[in-house]
Amino acid sequence: MLRVDWKNINFGDYKPITELKTMKPYVLGVDIGGTNTVFGIVDTRGKVIASSSIKTQKHANFDDYLDELYTEATRLIETNDAVDKIHGIGIGAPNANYYTGMIEHCVNLPWGTNLDLAGRVSEKFGIPCAVTNDANAAALGEMTYGAARGLKDFIMITLGTGVGSGIVINGQVVYGHDGFAGELGHLVVKRNNGRLCGCGRTGCLEAYCSATGVARSAREFLEIRTEPSLLRNIPIEDITSKDVYDAAMAGDKLAKDVFDYTGTILGEALADMTVFSSPEAFILFGGLAKSGELLMRPLREAMDKSMLDVFKGKPKVLLSELKEADAAVLGASALGWEAKGL
Amino acid sequence: MLRVDWKNINFGDYKPITELKTMKPYVLGVDIGGTNTVFGIVDTRGKVIASSSIKTQKHANFDDYLDELYTEATRLIETNDAVDKIHGIGIGAPNANYYTGMIEHCVNLPWGTNLDLAGRVSEKFGIPCAVTNDANAAALGEMTYGAARGLKDFIMITLGTGVGSGIVINGQVVYGHDGFAGELGHLVVKRNNGRLCGCGRTGCLEAYCSATGVARSAREFLEIRTEPSLLRNIPIEDITSKDVYDAAMAGDKLAKDVFDYTGTILGEALADMTVFSSPEAFILFGGLAKSGELLMRPLREAMDKSMLDVFKGKPKVLLSELKEADAAVLGASALGWEAKGL
Repeated sequence: MLRVDWKNINFGDYKPITELKTMKPYVLGVDIGGTNTVFGIVDTRGKVIASSSIKTQKHANFDDYLDELYTEATRLIETNDAVDKIHGIGIGAPNANYYTGMIEHCVNLPWGTNLDLAGRVSEKFGIPCAVTNDANAAALGEMTYGAARGLKDFIMITLGTGVGSGIVINGQVVYGHDGFAGELGHLVVKRNNGRLCGCGRTGCLEAYCSATGVARSAREFLEIRTEPSLLRNIPIEDITSKDVYDAAMAGDKLAKDVFDYTGTILGEALADMTVFSSPEAFILFGGLAKSGELLMRPLREAMDKSMLDVFKGKPKVLLSELKEADAAVLGASALGWEAKGL
Repeated sequence: MLRVDWKNINFGDYKPITELKTMKPYVLGVDIGGTNTVFGIVDTRGKVIASSSIKTQKHANFDDYLDELYTEATRLIETNDAVDKIHGIGIGAPNANYYTGMIEHCVNLPWGTNLDLAGRVSEKFGIPCAVTNDANAAALGEMTYGAARGLKDFIMITLGTGVGSGIVINGQVVYGHDGFAGELGHLVVKRNNGRLCGCGRTGCLEAYCSATGVARSAREFLEIRTEPSLLRNIPIEDITSKDVYDAAMAGDKLAKDVFDYTGTILGEALADMTVFSSPEAFILFGGLAKSGELLMRPLREAMDKSMLDVFKGKPKVLLSELKEADAAVLGASALGWEAKGL
């Protein structure tokens, strides 16, 4: 028999407690990435009951992709005794718009523009579906099951290949007028002579404080400076952020300087974000967030130094509490609790 | 007999229409500035029925100040047949905190720190009172009576001696975790070699795009450049933003360049703010906002050039629709509709 511990549920602020008792006990979280689509059945406590995946790029036609997703997810639901127990489907996907349910113009997915993702999925499954972008899903996941439980004002920063963000104010994700708010990876941190960013502009936070940004900084430092470095043993174009981390942990001065540089830029950016919404905390997620004091010491120093007096010492910097393997599905699933109607 | 046109009221989103019929027809708006305290009786349409003022600095003791405010405001209320018709009192004051009702640490007012402004005023008048800072009050005023009627996501930028801001998301002013959110005048726009700002840091938006910032830019340009300029007829330390405006309108190249410089920095900053909350509009208020195309042309060009693709062409830039003489009282009064309890 299924037992749910109703007393200890935390959905953040967006779900009145009176609605809980009529809810079905699971949600389906779907994370559509450029390579894999991962999906899982999640309970109210944030436990991933079961998960599976399909290849995102296998089908050039969206109908075929949807058929496979439906077949595989249904198999997972049946195997885990979850038929008629799915409250909603939450999907995290690049450029997905919470308001419209559409993927509007995404270059990483093969199915063209203006795709009615939420509509088609909810129709196919007969279950309400809501969508948002990856970073907003991460923020919802953290608020529902992770480090942001109980927080009403926080900013999630995802430090991956790029830099993403999800902003929560008064317990609600900020979607903005058009559904695309919270692109803090594209705050301009170097106005002059900034690096070219993937967005086509220059000087964005993402060009410095992502995993690729760290590798670029290492290459720049190696070219400008003459000192010896462990990183000189690696062909310069092959250097990854992991290489820089390993070298820094082995005591390499140049590699440590790269982390100082990265942490300083991120700390200054977090101070700038604070004058906007004065969050209680920033929550860092992604590979780079696991660099420990290499990143956190310069980050805290720069943040404190750059902080406007009235906010000094106030915003905390926390690390995500979601397991990386589950985080994308958990984040997407959190949105499933919000999905309404059909 | 008092007649109120209930069909055409717009309070923004924060006041359910069902509450309106039980409301008293007026609010008292109080704007506490460093020099003058202006107060007025305002109706639901944003008409200032009557207003008056007292000197803020006259009383070193807050009790004495409060006595005079009470005496003078009561006289105004009685004279205008508004006794028992005041729904609430809204106060805009530097550093006033919406959550606590307190003025916490303000250097411009003579009454010390941790002043329970909302509590003392509501007790004295027997009318609910709410407080916020000047720029948030301006945003509320614009949403209730001005250019932001019907907008749920906008950012108010006040261009005065300093640069203030009030951010509205989902129809609600953003106060942040501590009540002090929305200090966009202190976004860092020049990270290296930036100008010293009144806040003690360097490179803030306020140091460039305020009235004083424009005067500083003119002085810098006059010192660095050798070309003739009408501004060279004025002792350099006496130059004001009004002088720069007059010279630019008379065709002075250097003065026009100052506006180009100012508008460009502001436009870039508005593009940066857009990645945060993707507002439907920015609303500009204050003397500098009335510089017309001198400011608006470079502002629009820089904003468009710096805008992340997904937001290009989306946020509008509007000018305040509140009369400058009434704006402070109107803004503060808008908060009076929200005031609750005693």
